[in-house]
Amino acid sequence: RDHPPAQAALRDRLLSAVVSCFKRHGAAAIDTPVLELRETLVGKYGEEAKLIYELQDQGGELLALRYDLTVPFARYLAMNKITKMKRYHVAKVYRRDNPATTRGRYREFYQCDFDIAGQFDPMIPDAECLKIVHEILSDLQLGDFVIKVNDRRILNGVFAVCGVPESKFIPACSTVDKLDKLPWEEVRSEMVGEKGLSPEAADRIGEYVQLHGGLDLIEQLLQDPKLSQNKVAKEGLGDMKLLFEYLTLFGITGKISFDLSLARGLDYYTGVIFEAVLLQQENERGEEPVSVGSVAGGGRYDGLVGMFDPKGRKVPCVGVSIGIERIFSILEQRLEASGEKLRTTETQVLVATPQKHLLAARMKLISELWDAGIKAEMLYKKDPKLLKQLQYCEDTGIPLAAIVGEQELADGVVKLRDVATRKEVRV
Amino acid sequence: RDHPPAQAALRDRLLSAVVSCFKRHGAAAIDTPVLELRETLVGKYGEEAKLIYELQDQGGELLALRYDLTVPFARYLAMNKITKMKRYHVAKVYRRDNPATTRGRYREFYQCDFDIAGQFDPMIPDAECLKIVHEILSDLQLGDFVIKVNDRRILNGVFAVCGVPESKFIPACSTVDKLDKLPWEEVRSEMVGEKGLSPEAADRIGEYVQLHGGLDLIEQLLQDPKLSQNKVAKEGLGDMKLLFEYLTLFGITGKISFDLSLARGLDYYTGVIFEAVLLQQENERGEEPVSVGSVAGGGRYDGLVGMFDPKGRKVPCVGVSIGIERIFSILEQRLEASGEKLRTTETQVLVATPQKHLLAARMKLISELWDAGIKAEMLYKKDPKLLKQLQYCEDTGIPLAAIVGEQELADGVVKLRDVATRKEVRV
Repeated sequence: RDHPPAQAALRDRLLSAVVSCFKRHGAAAIDTPVLELRETLVGKYGEEAKLIYELQDQGGELLALRYDLTVPFARYLAMNKITKMKRYHVAKVYRRDNPATTRGRYREFYQCDFDIAGQFDPMIPDAECLKIVHEILSDLQLGDFVIKVNDRRILNGVFAVCGVPESKFIPACSTVDKLDKLPWEEVRSEMVGEKGLSPEAADRIGEYVQLHGGLDLIEQLLQDPKLSQNKVAKEGLGDMKLLFEYLTLFGITGKISFDLSLARGLDYYTGVIFEAVLLQQENERGEEPVSVGSVAGGGRYDGLVGMFDPKGRKVPCVGVSIGIERIFSILEQRLEASGEKLRTTETQVLVATPQKHLLAARMKLISELWDAGIKAEMLYKKDPKLLKQLQYCEDTGIPLAAIVGEQELADGVVKLRDVATRKEVRV
Repeated sequence: RDHPPAQAALRDRLLSAVVSCFKRHGAAAIDTPVLELRETLVGKYGEEAKLIYELQDQGGELLALRYDLTVPFARYLAMNKITKMKRYHVAKVYRRDNPATTRGRYREFYQCDFDIAGQFDPMIPDAECLKIVHEILSDLQLGDFVIKVNDRRILNGVFAVCGVPESKFIPACSTVDKLDKLPWEEVRSEMVGEKGLSPEAADRIGEYVQLHGGLDLIEQLLQDPKLSQNKVAKEGLGDMKLLFEYLTLFGITGKISFDLSLARGLDYYTGVIFEAVLLQQENERGEEPVSVGSVAGGGRYDGLVGMFDPKGRKVPCVGVSIGIERIFSILEQRLEASGEKLRTTETQVLVATPQKHLLAARMKLISELWDAGIKAEMLYKKDPKLLKQLQYCEDTGIPLAAIVGEQELADGVVKLRDVATRKEVRV
């Protein structure tokens, strides 16, 4: 997929907004290569690993294209023995998937990641990640959204108290993750059929994972006779309560939903997980808002860095990834619907001549403008017609024309024309 | 190769300077994928093609990583039937080469390309490309430089009048290209030995390709009894004269050298070619300045787009590529030598507390600052020591600390501390 100028300009604007939020939160940039050693990526992504692009063996190392920015970040931290870092990374990742272009799903796509690595007091960095999602989605004016939050420890506790053997936590988790697309009945039958859970366990899980709410739900589960007896669930619920406290201080709990059906696909999460979804804009029939898909997600992954350290030393991490491609396709559709035309260049002035044999005058003037830092263009013709030159301004949105004719040359001035109003001044 | 924050920040600054020059000249951005069809890249690069990274055949199309940004641009123009465009593209390209890190040569590296496609009056866009090189190298304050200019048509004319058969023009050209690294004797012996030119032809070529100069040399060659009889050479020399006229209007001939030894490696050039080299900075013995390597290059390639068009329709193009990696390694060495520390974040203020139990106050204040667009950080500790917080400012270059203590909370103010001067004001 190529991005023509109109797309590239919109994308540029979008990425700038995201990066400026990351910088606002004090993150430093790093850059890692598109190519990683194949062995770095193996065993980090669970079922999705089959989508990794591999390079041909042309001698030398066996290489693959990065699949996300999180695994390279963890590899980077371990390799350089870094135990504390706040970084952002905006770059393309590669998945050998079937593209679904209308939903903004491609084989090559941008990820915009912000991560905080280090041993800190609980939930403070986690809360900042949610604040960042809230800021970005608000800044971009994408309409109403909700950020679903859960914790892998709570889910694991639920599985445990429902009688799921520990070896089946990960498959159970990836089935629960489908609840945003499938009704409970179908998810249940996958649990019992494909994943081999007992019908009783599935029913008990169903009672939990269909719950969502706020602080009240956390309190309720902390009183739950079974869950409250489970060590990891209790830890997860305690931290969730603390998280809500911090989110209240940040003033963003209005958009946060503690949602037990949120599971997230990737294997490496160990604590808090979250996902932001946009809510349907138009809803004439007054129904409950419908989700139109995830535009950001993330969570805590305390074990990943240790997988790359020879001694297994862990560095706790939490991070967020902004789903820029989906946001981009929403904004693009909106721009198209509005009929508004985005400028693809930033040219401020066209240097023009009204008579023949004035190329030298144009070249001298434009050179002066460039040297003064002014964005200027001229037509690459020796003797273009004035009308053509003004037409070019209108076509490309250049607001001013600097006109040098024989009279202007003789008087030592330039005629500056406002293209829209046709007003002219001599300067 | 990973880029840690200090490198990423310097690189970011450098790329911004280059992009702002491209925008100053009215270019629009496009983006093309890192992956190209293998067949797109085959047969475009001459001897260098063996350096192309290929992807494993995992089903679907046979893919390779892009080798430069020029061939994808030509493919883009042909595919979309675009006959006129001024575009820039800053992105990474891939070469399966032996890295030479001290010379800024890597397997993954940035290219910064600006190209003008379209049928225009001769040498006007070509002159702009040289102006751009001049502006960028001046803006970056890299020290003295020279831009060597030649024309493939002049070289081909030279080969013809020296008795080289047309089938050997390309091999002869790639041998001439080595004159910047090897003395003429060695280049001559490669011509006669490996490339099979006659000793007489090689000697005659030697008389031409060791010439360099300015307008005077162009005039001299236009009077040359043999060259002036050769149609392509005459065309090339005529255009070179016109180019010098335009470069005089741009005021940059002082840095331009018409150099017949310049050949450029790639097959696709058809007209003007150029290459900018930095000249040695320190030269205590008063010798002639020595080149320290190419930092930009480009030229005209009128045939490349036609290779991708089913009907072979040509779109004339001229462009320039800035060798950002080499410039980057020069600037990095210079920064290291100066001992100056580049900030890796842009944080303006650290929100700090001088007593315990004030995390809530910090979180409320920082949230207000973020919402007001201010770049702010806080330590991820419930009760950090004030000294640690101020130390963090000094370590990372944060200029201000916004301190809220019990007194400030009671008074409804914040104490703003200038970290360097230790001056404090209550606001």
